[in-house]
Amino acid sequence: EELSQAQYDTVYNFLSLVIASQLFTALFIVMSLRRVLPKYRAALIISATVCGIAAYHYFRIFDSFREAYVTDAVGGQGVYTLAEGVSFNVAYRYVDWLLTVPLLLLEAIAVLALARKTQTSLLVRLIPASALMIVLGYPGEISDDVTTKMIWGALSTIPFAYILYVLFVELGRILAGAPREIAVTVRNLRLLLLGTWGVYPIAYLFPVLGIEGSDAFVAREVGYSVADILAKALFALVIFRIARLKSAYDD
Amino acid sequence: EELSQAQYDTVYNFLSLVIASQLFTALFIVMSLRRVLPKYRAALIISATVCGIAAYHYFRIFDSFREAYVTDAVGGQGVYTLAEGVSFNVAYRYVDWLLTVPLLLLEAIAVLALARKTQTSLLVRLIPASALMIVLGYPGEISDDVTTKMIWGALSTIPFAYILYVLFVELGRILAGAPREIAVTVRNLRLLLLGTWGVYPIAYLFPVLGIEGSDAFVAREVGYSVADILAKALFALVIFRIARLKSAYDD
Ligand SMILES: CC1=C(/C=C/C(C)=C/C=C/C(C)=C/C=O)C(C)(C)CCC1
Ligand SMILES: CC1=C(/C=C/C(C)=C/C=C/C(C)=C/C=O)C(C)(C)CCC1
Repeated sequence: EELSQAQYDTVYNFLSLVIASQLFTALFIVMSLRRVLPKYRAALIISATVCGIAAYHYFRIFDSFREAYVTDAVGGQGVYTLAEGVSFNVAYRYVDWLLTVPLLLLEAIAVLALARKTQTSLLVRLIPASALMIVLGYPGEISDDVTTKMIWGALSTIPFAYILYVLFVELGRILAGAPREIAVTVRNLRLLLLGTWGVYPIAYLFPVLGIEGSDAFVAREVGYSVADILAKALFALVIFRIARLKSAYDD
Repeated sequence: EELSQAQYDTVYNFLSLVIASQLFTALFIVMSLRRVLPKYRAALIISATVCGIAAYHYFRIFDSFREAYVTDAVGGQGVYTLAEGVSFNVAYRYVDWLLTVPLLLLEAIAVLALARKTQTSLLVRLIPASALMIVLGYPGEISDDVTTKMIWGALSTIPFAYILYVLFVELGRILAGAPREIAVTVRNLRLLLLGTWGVYPIAYLFPVLGIEGSDAFVAREVGYSVADILAKALFALVIFRIARLKSAYDD
């Protein structure tokens, strides 16, 4: 597989952008912990952990990318090809998601500060479903075969749909009698989650959707990178904002 | 010894998963310290230390693995063989355990917040036994000979059995009159310890149990990696949970 100079730079710069976003969102959240009431700190600590884990994995992805694609053009201005003996590790993303997706759900539920029992009942269903979604997506991701990709993608979509069902239908039922202010928060948070998580299956499908060869590779890397910034860093900042507002309101 | 691409990736990805789990569990616990009462913080600080030590050793194990197994296939998609002049260092795990196993016992006893005298009397027996268990296991680990493996494994099992005896029989006697809530915590903690520590001797036995050649290598690495996540990171989170609940209860 070959990457043009522009393609190589695009992936490179996006990966670096993700590192900076995750790392400094994590630090920002840690520095801001004491600005919210203690009961909202759990959600913030989890957010910071999620962004930290992502930063770690993007350091690895970035290094892996730099080692895997090489050129012998002077000044690095040329065509990049795969090096001998080094692979670009696609699994880092899935290892990252395996840890961060359950934590993101935990974080979203934690900031609602629901009754302990309701919280547990939601989490025991959401967390295993999210792990299953990631595990089922992986074999499709590493396969070059469109049929294989479609089958695992479809299987992975089942737990994804279940998560959305729990968040939109069941959580809605639980919150039916909640004060308007909470209802609005939940609605917005859910929409943000849907909007950002929805980017992943789309990026997954780029190679299938007629984008070809190295363009598909670049589109997928950029797609996942943008999705990770939205689903983790932006999400963390929204959670922080909610925790701040609720802290002022509860005081 | 040769590893196929899939075998290489499996070990590689598990080692990276352990790094991320230990590192961010340690940071999570540090960030959460102030969320428990002061008397439970000792246990959390020890947890964070254990996970931190493990993260350090897994960085080393990961690097050692990457240097020891090499391929010259383009894009790294090929068979990996042992490089000349570099060994995959098995001792890191044992050095890690030598530090972390005594600390884990300390952490488990600390969170119970027993009377000082009882605590000391348990620890002076548990800690030397645990160190002995690790030291006796090492000569068997580095040997390729099944008989040698079995002999050292059996010797190492003696202190292991003694630890279980102290935790299940003696600790039970000490806690005979304790409130129900404490009794339940101890029972669960002990079962978790048994369930997770029990994985180590099983992984140790893979090469003996008829799994052969590089499959045994991969099974052992994955086995120890999973065991380390459960015995250290998951254990730390359970200790945190207990400390949180007890803090709420004591308040
Ligand atoms: C439905 C579906 C997928 C969904 C992935 C999602 C929803 C990932 C979310 C990741 C997040 C939120 C990471 C942030 O930490 C896969 C696995 C691409 C495979 C194709 C089908
Ligand atoms: C019984 C036995 C063993 C037990 C090892 C154990 C129980 C290790 C626990 C390690 C932990 C808990 C590490 C976490 O920090 C060995 C040495 C494999 C050798 C074979 C016999």
